[in-house]
Amino acid sequence: MSNVSQQQYREILVSLVQGVLTITFNRPHKKNAMNLTLVNEVIEVFSRIEDDNSVRAVVICGSEGNFCAGGDISDMHSDAANAEGTQQAIWNFNRSFGRMITQVNNAPQVIITQLEGAVLGGGFGLACVSDIAIAHQSAIFAMPETGLGVIPAQIAPFVVTRIGLTQARRLALLGERVGAAQGKTLGIVHFVCDTQDALQTQLSDVLKQVQRGAPKANASTKALMLKVGTIELESLLDEAADLFTQALASDEGKEGTQAFLQKRKPSWCV
Amino acid sequence: MSNVSQQQYREILVSLVQGVLTITFNRPHKKNAMNLTLVNEVIEVFSRIEDDNSVRAVVICGSEGNFCAGGDISDMHSDAANAEGTQQAIWNFNRSFGRMITQVNNAPQVIITQLEGAVLGGGFGLACVSDIAIAHQSAIFAMPETGLGVIPAQIAPFVVTRIGLTQARRLALLGERVGAAQGKTLGIVHFVCDTQDALQTQLSDVLKQVQRGAPKANASTKALMLKVGTIELESLLDEAADLFTQALASDEGKEGTQAFLQKRKPSWCV
Amino acid sequence: MSNVSQQQYREILVSLVQGVLTITFNRPHKKNAMNLTLVNEVIEVFSRIEDDNSVRAVVICGSEGNFCAGGDISDMHSDAANAEGTQQAIWNFNRSFGRMITQVNNAPQVIITQLEGAVLGGGFGLACVSDIAIAHQSAIFAMPETGLGVIPAQIAPFVVTRIGLTQARRLALLGERVGAAQGKTLGIVHFVCDTQDALQTQLSDVLKQVQRGAPKANASTKALMLKVGTIELESLLDEAADLFTQALASDEGKEGTQAFLQKRKPSWCV
Repeated sequence: MSNVSQQQYREILVSLVQGVLTITFNRPHKKNAMNLTLVNEVIEVFSRIEDDNSVRAVVICGSEGNFCAGGDISDMHSDAANAEGTQQAIWNFNRSFGRMITQVNNAPQVIITQLEGAVLGGGFGLACVSDIAIAHQSAIFAMPETGLGVIPAQIAPFVVTRIGLTQARRLALLGERVGAAQGKTLGIVHFVCDTQDALQTQLSDVLKQVQRGAPKANASTKALMLKVGTIELESLLDEAADLFTQALASDEGKEGTQAFLQKRKPSWCV
Repeated sequence: MSNVSQQQYREILVSLVQGVLTITFNRPHKKNAMNLTLVNEVIEVFSRIEDDNSVRAVVICGSEGNFCAGGDISDMHSDAANAEGTQQAIWNFNRSFGRMITQVNNAPQVIITQLEGAVLGGGFGLACVSDIAIAHQSAIFAMPETGLGVIPAQIAPFVVTRIGLTQARRLALLGERVGAAQGKTLGIVHFVCDTQDALQTQLSDVLKQVQRGAPKANASTKALMLKVGTIELESLLDEAADLFTQALASDEGKEGTQAFLQKRKPSWCV
Repeated sequence: MSNVSQQQYREILVSLVQGVLTITFNRPHKKNAMNLTLVNEVIEVFSRIEDDNSVRAVVICGSEGNFCAGGDISDMHSDAANAEGTQQAIWNFNRSFGRMITQVNNAPQVIITQLEGAVLGGGFGLACVSDIAIAHQSAIFAMPETGLGVIPAQIAPFVVTRIGLTQARRLALLGERVGAAQGKTLGIVHFVCDTQDALQTQLSDVLKQVQRGAPKANASTKALMLKVGTIELESLLDEAADLFTQALASDEGKEGTQAFLQKRKPSWCV
């Protein structure tokens, strides 16, 4: 098992309980807006668990009523941007958001976001790559970037993939603020909960459902789905048949099919 | 006219009435789970009609209250998978689902699925390529694969294309069972019917609407739409203009535009 | 500022008020069906404003209760199509719709369509590339082409991108007529209004929201979103970081971040 939860972090809290890793953004005075340290810490956590099948799910949430208000603009104000060295720093800071989101998107674990309050900019982008998104009714989704004279650069591809070009254009160009119910209609989130209790119950239900899927099979399925549209269909289906054949012959496949025929739960259902 | 309906099949029933070919999966003792014979018979039927414009629509349904419970797992249990020769057999069996679904997706006819009871695994994949999907309220859609330690290999691309990556991830990773109403919300199906009578009425309405479209124009439109995203946009639009010019100069185009100007039904509306 | 609104046009009306350009299709006797002159005039207007940031939004609408009934079929009837020279003319006419739609799609301004009555064929295609689509309850969307023996050639890619393959197949193959409410459910439009007054109020609200976004940042965001899926993700994110860095160092970026820190409206909010 990885020792990821024993590390010390400055801007996030990390805990691991029964195969569920929880990452809490912990900059409540900034509505959990992300600075470079936070982004790098998230990247580090996901790097540590990228081969760790004992971690079945990762829950990402924010402290004190907000998920994440985006990038911390005080780290990238315009005066600083004029100096040449700073231009490169700005580029690196911006690009790091995309690196983080891409890494979370590609994680083998089931990624669950717990969304409340501000879900803006980079926070919105991160929500868009979660396998399961659970929103509290307080959640507000928006891309406010063009109102600040800048662009939703690193999140645009993930928002378009999540909700389609039609709605992505509208939200980005109007800077519209979308609540939880509309967030579900648009396909940003899967579940909306009216209370914190309901949200915890929903999270708990989802985590139980995660247990039913074999860890490696879930990881393989997720990787396969992310490849759709990036390579030619016939090649993808050939590759998928390879993965299926390997999965069926694996320990998971043997256990799963035997459990099915014996009408019992497979070993990975703890 | 093809003689497809006069063939004998072991696992499916086939009938042809007034240009509508109906394929019924006929393994009710297995909830119409597909074995290799069934898959190959479906492929054979579609091969026989792939140039046959007299067949305007194909209706795919299952016998005795279920559409299809997926692949027949008793044909591919794990012990067998250990033998090397069997590994190849498993690969071929798995890959054949993708071949069948791809062929149905590319068929020139309008494909209608009539969905009730179990619509699982490969059955779900097949539903995802129908031009028109009509669900009875008894329908249950799910990808149970990872609960068996395997993966929804051959159906993943078609599910992602049908309902988007966001919902596909959720359904695959949680193994969630989705009913007919939610199936409509997610975009799996176009229509939901409460009773068998209502379902037959809806099917009959759809078949009437199919008659209004010229057969070759429908086939050409469908092929064009399937190409979107696979080739560069300007090339696709050039090709589309070729197809339009050919269509307008064809017997269908002449008849259609004349009928329009003469305010009468075109000849293909029977 | 461009002098686009001082030109004379035969088939459209053009006006420019406070940075909002309005294009009105003006062939009410044909339900604003498009002939080649209309298409070329729209292309000309968009060419004139393609580098003009003083035009913040373009509103496209139709005169006398219809948006646009598609291509003017009397310009392309089948007898004419038999002559070889005419075949080329047909090709060019058809292809020009795709050119027009592509140009509108790529325009740097926020494009708003105001949709009522007939929104058919090419008119439907045009609606599908608007950033914001506002429908009056009278709007009817359809692709009637295959009922005429021809195909929705130049609009197919844009319809598939707007509403997905699942619903695009259904609408094209059944020639189904879809009303405003269903148009919203399918994602064709963003807003539905019951009365003309409500529609004008919605349009006015949207135009106010457009003002909050910096013009160049909006243009850059839109261009970036249109690239999603056409180039490899990592390259797109690198390019996006370039655009972000430029935007932050630009006059817009300086003004926007300063206004944010000073808790005032930026200069482009008129």
